[in-house]
Amino acid sequence: MNLFLRDPINTAEMDKFFNPASIAVVGASNRRGGSQTIKNLLFGYDGEIYPVNPIHKKIQGIPCFPSIEDIPPPVDLAIILVPAPAVPSVLASCARKGVSRVMVESAGFTEVGPDGKNIQDHCVAIAREAGIRIWGPNGMGLVDIPRRYFFTFMTPRIYRDGIIDGRISLIVQSGMLSAGFLVDLLSRRNIGVGKICSIGNKADVDECDLLPYLLNDPETDVVALYLESVPRGRLLSDLVKRSKKPVVVLKGGKSDEGARAAKSHTASLAGNSRLLCDVLDSSGATLAEDFHQMIDLARTLSVNPAIPPRCRLAVVSFSGAAGIVSCDLMEKHGLRIARLSQETKHALGNLYPEWMPVANPVDLYPAMELHWRESPVGQAIFILLKDANVDVILVHFVTGLGGEELDLSALKKEADRAGKLIIFWLLGRRKTSREFSLTAQKYGILVYDEISRAVECLSAGARFRAYETSKRTKDHVSSTRPVFDPVKSNVSLPEAGVLDEYESKKILKNWHIPIAEEQLVTTVSEVKEAARKIGFPVVVKGLLPGELHKTELGLVRLAIAREGELERAFRDIKKRLQGTGHILVQSQIDTDFELITGFLRDAQLGPCVMFGLGGIFSEIQQDVRFALAPINHSGAVNLMSQIRGNAILNGFRGIKPLDMDAMADLMVCLSHLGADNPNIEQIDINPVAVTAGSPVAVDAAIVIGSEWQEKKQGHIESVRTPSF
Amino acid sequence: MNLFLRDPINTAEMDKFFNPASIAVVGASNRRGGSQTIKNLLFGYDGEIYPVNPIHKKIQGIPCFPSIEDIPPPVDLAIILVPAPAVPSVLASCARKGVSRVMVESAGFTEVGPDGKNIQDHCVAIAREAGIRIWGPNGMGLVDIPRRYFFTFMTPRIYRDGIIDGRISLIVQSGMLSAGFLVDLLSRRNIGVGKICSIGNKADVDECDLLPYLLNDPETDVVALYLESVPRGRLLSDLVKRSKKPVVVLKGGKSDEGARAAKSHTASLAGNSRLLCDVLDSSGATLAEDFHQMIDLARTLSVNPAIPPRCRLAVVSFSGAAGIVSCDLMEKHGLRIARLSQETKHALGNLYPEWMPVANPVDLYPAMELHWRESPVGQAIFILLKDANVDVILVHFVTGLGGEELDLSALKKEADRAGKLIIFWLLGRRKTSREFSLTAQKYGILVYDEISRAVECLSAGARFRAYETSKRTKDHVSSTRPVFDPVKSNVSLPEAGVLDEYESKKILKNWHIPIAEEQLVTTVSEVKEAARKIGFPVVVKGLLPGELHKTELGLVRLAIAREGELERAFRDIKKRLQGTGHILVQSQIDTDFELITGFLRDAQLGPCVMFGLGGIFSEIQQDVRFALAPINHSGAVNLMSQIRGNAILNGFRGIKPLDMDAMADLMVCLSHLGADNPNIEQIDINPVAVTAGSPVAVDAAIVIGSEWQEKKQGHIESVRTPSF
Repeated sequence: MNLFLRDPINTAEMDKFFNPASIAVVGASNRRGGSQTIKNLLFGYDGEIYPVNPIHKKIQGIPCFPSIEDIPPPVDLAIILVPAPAVPSVLASCARKGVSRVMVESAGFTEVGPDGKNIQDHCVAIAREAGIRIWGPNGMGLVDIPRRYFFTFMTPRIYRDGIIDGRISLIVQSGMLSAGFLVDLLSRRNIGVGKICSIGNKADVDECDLLPYLLNDPETDVVALYLESVPRGRLLSDLVKRSKKPVVVLKGGKSDEGARAAKSHTASLAGNSRLLCDVLDSSGATLAEDFHQMIDLARTLSVNPAIPPRCRLAVVSFSGAAGIVSCDLMEKHGLRIARLSQETKHALGNLYPEWMPVANPVDLYPAMELHWRESPVGQAIFILLKDANVDVILVHFVTGLGGEELDLSALKKEADRAGKLIIFWLLGRRKTSREFSLTAQKYGILVYDEISRAVECLSAGARFRAYETSKRTKDHVSSTRPVFDPVKSNVSLPEAGVLDEYESKKILKNWHIPIAEEQLVTTVSEVKEAARKIGFPVVVKGLLPGELHKTELGLVRLAIAREGELERAFRDIKKRLQGTGHILVQSQIDTDFELITGFLRDAQLGPCVMFGLGGIFSEIQQDVRFALAPINHSGAVNLMSQIRGNAILNGFRGIKPLDMDAMADLMVCLSHLGADNPNIEQIDINPVAVTAGSPVAVDAAIVIGSEWQEKKQGHIESVRTPSF
Repeated sequence: MNLFLRDPINTAEMDKFFNPASIAVVGASNRRGGSQTIKNLLFGYDGEIYPVNPIHKKIQGIPCFPSIEDIPPPVDLAIILVPAPAVPSVLASCARKGVSRVMVESAGFTEVGPDGKNIQDHCVAIAREAGIRIWGPNGMGLVDIPRRYFFTFMTPRIYRDGIIDGRISLIVQSGMLSAGFLVDLLSRRNIGVGKICSIGNKADVDECDLLPYLLNDPETDVVALYLESVPRGRLLSDLVKRSKKPVVVLKGGKSDEGARAAKSHTASLAGNSRLLCDVLDSSGATLAEDFHQMIDLARTLSVNPAIPPRCRLAVVSFSGAAGIVSCDLMEKHGLRIARLSQETKHALGNLYPEWMPVANPVDLYPAMELHWRESPVGQAIFILLKDANVDVILVHFVTGLGGEELDLSALKKEADRAGKLIIFWLLGRRKTSREFSLTAQKYGILVYDEISRAVECLSAGARFRAYETSKRTKDHVSSTRPVFDPVKSNVSLPEAGVLDEYESKKILKNWHIPIAEEQLVTTVSEVKEAARKIGFPVVVKGLLPGELHKTELGLVRLAIAREGELERAFRDIKKRLQGTGHILVQSQIDTDFELITGFLRDAQLGPCVMFGLGGIFSEIQQDVRFALAPINHSGAVNLMSQIRGNAILNGFRGIKPLDMDAMADLMVCLSHLGADNPNIEQIDINPVAVTAGSPVAVDAAIVIGSEWQEKKQGHIESVRTPSF
C-alpha cells in the first residue's frame, strides 16, 4: 500500500537536513553542550564530522577548524551552537562556504524580546539572500532514532535503557519533546519513535516544510505535531488533506486570548484555536490535547489500515466489571459491541463451565478457573478472530499472576491473516508487563494502560478510516447535482464599519441568499401599510448604525398581531432611536428551529465559514463548526453533519427536515461573498430561520475591514508559498 | 480535623468482618483456592484460624475440623469457599454454631441464572432467620493492606514487589479490582491502598452497609466505589452527603438500555445512569469513568484539605510547551493561573539569565542551563510557596537526566507550613522515576503521569472543597427568605395513563404552578370568542388522549393573528382529531427562552426532579440535570446553576434574567406534587416559557402509574432501612 502523499511533491529541499554527507558543528567545545553534540554525532552518524572552534585543536578526538570556511571539503549541514549575537556572522561564513542547510540550536532570539528578534530577522535576511534554509533557532534539532542520528546538544542518557525503534515521527515547536519526553517514551512507556524534529522559533523552516518530507519518508507511518503558532494554517490543512498517512496535531495555546476583534458572533465563537482545530479536523487530522495522548493516538493510527471505519469490538476480559466499563466507554466514543455469531458462541461455550452463558464482553474468569493451564485467553482470541462480525478484539490482560502465557507472534499472524486487530489493556506486575509490552511493540500489537485511552484511540482510528473512505468515494463518484455557481454580483461596500441589518441583507439578497420579507419605514402610516402588505403578525426592529445587539437595547418587537400594537411599537422604537438609525418591518416567521451561519477572515487560515445551531442558544451551547471558505456543496453538507446537535436537521420529533441543498446553497453563496470581497471581514447570519425545512436569513450583519484587517491580510500574503 | 461522618452512626455491625478474633475457612483444602486462603490468612492475620474440611487432617500445618460446628471456641467470621449448592447447609451450620458474620466467596449464584438465584435466595432466607450477615457471594472478600489481612482466595504474588500502605479504601461490586488491578496499583503505579471490599452479588451486605464503616475508619481518608446496581441509591446519596470524607464513584453499566418506560421527555433524558450520577454528584460524590482514573481521583482527594475551592496554580516547567499545554488544560477544567507577586518575580528573576522575563508558567529551562548544580527547581518551588497568590504548584519534573535532586521531605514540610500543595507531572527513566514516586508516596506528595490527569484531578479536588465549603455555609447561615410551603391540594387522578395537556395543567394550576392562559373549545364560535378573550396572537392545539407528541401530528398551530386563520386552523385540527380528543386555545407567549422541568419516580432513587434548557433543543443538547424530590428552594436554585448553559438564566445578551425565586417555587411545587402522590409516575413541563424573567408552563403532561410503576414502588419499599 502506498502511504505517501497522493500527489508527488518535491521534498529534496529538506533532504540534506535528514541525510547530510557531512556536518560542521560551529561552537563545538569542551563544555557541556558543545562537546555533547560531537559525542551525539559519534554515537551513530556515519558521515564526516567537522568541529568548528577557534581555540581548540581537537574535540572528542576529532580535529577542529577555526572557521567553517577553513574546512576544505563541502559541508552539507552546519549545526550552530554559538550565542545568538554571533550567529549572523556564522551564517555569513556559511554563505561564503556554500553551506545551504543550517540548524541553529542556540537560544536568545525572538523568544527573549525585541533585541533577540532583531538578531533573528537579521539571520533570516542573510539566509534568504544566500539561499540558506535555517532550522531553528531555539530548538533541539533532529533526532532519528532508527538511524541513531542525534543532531542535537541534548543529553544522551536515553541510550541507557535501550532505544526502541519506531515509525512515529514528530515535529515539535519546542525543545522538551526531544529530551525528557523522549526519555519517558523509550524508558517508561516502551514506545518507539522515528524522527523527531524540534523546530524551535521556526524562523524559516516550519511544519509545512517538514511535513511533506515526513509524509514521503518510507520510514515514517504517522506524523505527530506539537504546534503553538500556525502561520501557514491553510497550507497545513491542505497538506493534511492530501496526506494518506495519519497526522496527529496537539495545538498549544488554546487559553491565550486571541487578538481577533470579535465584532460578530462568528468571530467570538471562533476563539483562539477552535477555528484552526475545526479546519484541521475536517482535513482529516486527529487532534490531541496532551502529550502522551498525542503519542497514544499516533501509535494507534500507525496500525490504522487494520481499523475499520465502523469497528465492531469483541472484549475479552477476566472481569465482568472491566467488560461493563469497556462497553460504557465504547458507547461514549461511538464504537459498536460486536454480536457474536452462533459458531463463536458455541466454540466459546466449550471453554466455559456449564452454567456460564456466552456473551460479549467475553468474561473468561470462570474459564480461567477451569482451564488455567490451557490458555483460555489465547483460545478465545483465536475463536473470535474467525467471527465475521468481529473487527477488533480488546483483550484485558494481567501479567505476572502466572498461569497464562500468550503467543503474541502467533496471535498477530492470525490477526493479520484475518485482517483484524488485537489490542490490549494491560495490567500487572512491573517487570512482566514491561516484557509483555516490549514483545507487543516488536509485533506491532497495541498495548494501553487505561481502557478509556484504548477506546478513545480506537475511535480516532475508526474516524480517520471513515474520513479516508469518504475521500476515496468522493474521488470516484461525481455528484448527480450540478455544481452551484454563485453569480458574483458587484457589491459596493463602504470603507469600514458594521453594516446594519437592512444593508447587510440587501447584499445577501444580491448574492441569492433567501431573506425574510421586510421594508424600511419612517412614519406611522408607512409602518401600517407595510404590515398590511407583508401580513400580520409582523416584527418591528430599530436599526442603530454599528450596533449588532438590537435585542439588548429593546429595539426588537416580535409577533405584533394588530395595528394598535404596531403603532405603539413603532413610536416606542422611534423614541429609543433618538433621531438616528432606521426602522424595519418584517414578516414574523413561524420558525421550527434556528441556525447560525457566518464568515470570517482569519490571520492564519484566511476566509472561513461557520455553521451551527442558532438563536440565543448559539453562544450558550457553542454548537458550531468552522471550515475554509469558499466551500462547495458537499463541503457545506459535511460541515452541517459535524455539529453535535445535527439530529435536529434530519427531522427530529416530527419537525420537517432541513432542506440540506437549500442550506448548502446559502452557505456556498455566503462563503463566496466573503471570500471574493477582501474587505469583508466578518458576516453573521443569525438566526437563519428554518420553517418547513426552508432556511431564511432573518437577521444579519456584515463587518467591513478596518486597518487591523488590512494588516492581517498583509500577513497572509507575506507567507511564502510551499516548496512543491 | 475530624474526617468522620457528621452524625455518630453505629458501625459495630460490620466490625466483625474487619476485625474478627477468629476465622473459620469452610472449604479449605489442599487445592489451589482452598489452600491459598489459609496461606493468605497466615501472611498477616493474627487471630485464630480454623480450616474446615471433612477429609483433610491439616491444611498448611493447621489442624482441620470436619464441620464448623466441631470447632470448640467461638468463631467470629466464616469464609465459605464450597460450591454454591453446598452453601445453604453451611449457613445452617453457622446458625447452629452462632457464627453471625459470613463471607461467601464461591460463585454460581444469581449471576449464573434462575437456579443460582434460587440458591442465593435460600441463603439469604436462612441468614435473615438466624441474624447472620452475608458478605458476597461471588466476591473476593476483604483485603486490608496496612494490616496484611487477606480474607480472600486470590493469588498473593502482589507481595513480591512490595506492598505499599495507603489510606484509600475501595468497595467494589466485582472481583477484578482485588486481584489484577491491585497488583497493577502496587507494582506498576506505586500507589498504596487501605481496605478493599469485594462485595460480589451483594445478596445482603452492600455498599450502604460498608460505606459508613469506612467513613468512620480512622485508617481511611477516602472511599472509592465501583458499582453496577445501586438498589439503595437514595440512601447512598444521603450517606455521601453526610460524609466529611471524599467519596469517588465509578458507575458501570451506563450503556445498558434501562427498563424505564420513557413515556416523557423527563424519563427519556434520565437514561440508565445519568439520573443516579447527577444525584450522587449533587451529593458531593466525585464521579469517575475508568478504573485508574478512579484511583487517581481518590488519591488526589485524600490530600483534599490542601486543595482550596478556587485554586490558583503556579506551574514550574522545563519546557514552554508543557507550560502552555498545562494552561490550556487548566482553563478547560476551570482552574486559575496564579498571578505572581512582585516579590516572587524578583526572586525568580535571580535564577534566570538576564534576558529571560519571569512569568507563570515558570519556564526554568534557561535557569537550569545556568545553575544546573544549584537546584533551581527546588529554589523556584520554595519561592512560589511564599507567594500569597499561589495555592498549588504543579511541577513538571524529569528523573534520570542527572543534575537536579529534589529534597521532597523539605518541600513537603514547607508546603504544609504554608498550607499549600505541590504536585508533580513526572517524566523520566524507568528506575529513577519509580524511586521518585515511592518517595513522593511516602511524603504524601501527588505524582501524575499525564498533565491532563493532574489537572482533571485537581479540578475535582477544588470542586469537592467548594461543595464542602457551601455545605458548611448552609449549616450556619439561615435563609432570609421564608421557606415556601406548597399547599397540598387534593388531586383526583385517574388510575393509569397519560393525562392530556389541559388536564395536566389544571392539576399544575391547583399546585400553584403558573400556566399559560387557555380554554377548551368545541365550536367555531367558541374558538373565536376564546381568542378574543385571550387576545391575538393565539395558539390552537389538538389534544389526543395519551399522546405526548402533538407537534409531530400537525396538531399545533402557532402565532395565529387573525380570525380567518383561526377558523381554518380549528377546522383542520378538528378533522385530524377524527372525533376524539379536545381542542385548546392558548395565548401565544412571546418567549425569551424556553426551559424544561419534570418529575419522575425511579426504581433506585424514588421521586426525582429535572431541570434544563427546553423546547425542541432539550433532547438534542441534553442540557438537563436531576435531583432528588421533593426539593427545597435552595436545592432548586442549586440545580438550576448546574446546567451547562446556565449563562442564559443570568441575563445573557440583554435578555432579562430568569426570576430564580419564581422558577424555584415552580420546581418546589412540582416536586411536592410528584412526591406526595405515589401514583404519579412522570411529569413533563416542556416548555416552561420565560418572558421578561417570568416562567409559565406552556405545555405539560402527567403520566399516572401503571402496573409496572406499582412493581417499582414495591421494590423501593422493600429495600431495607440502613443499620443506623
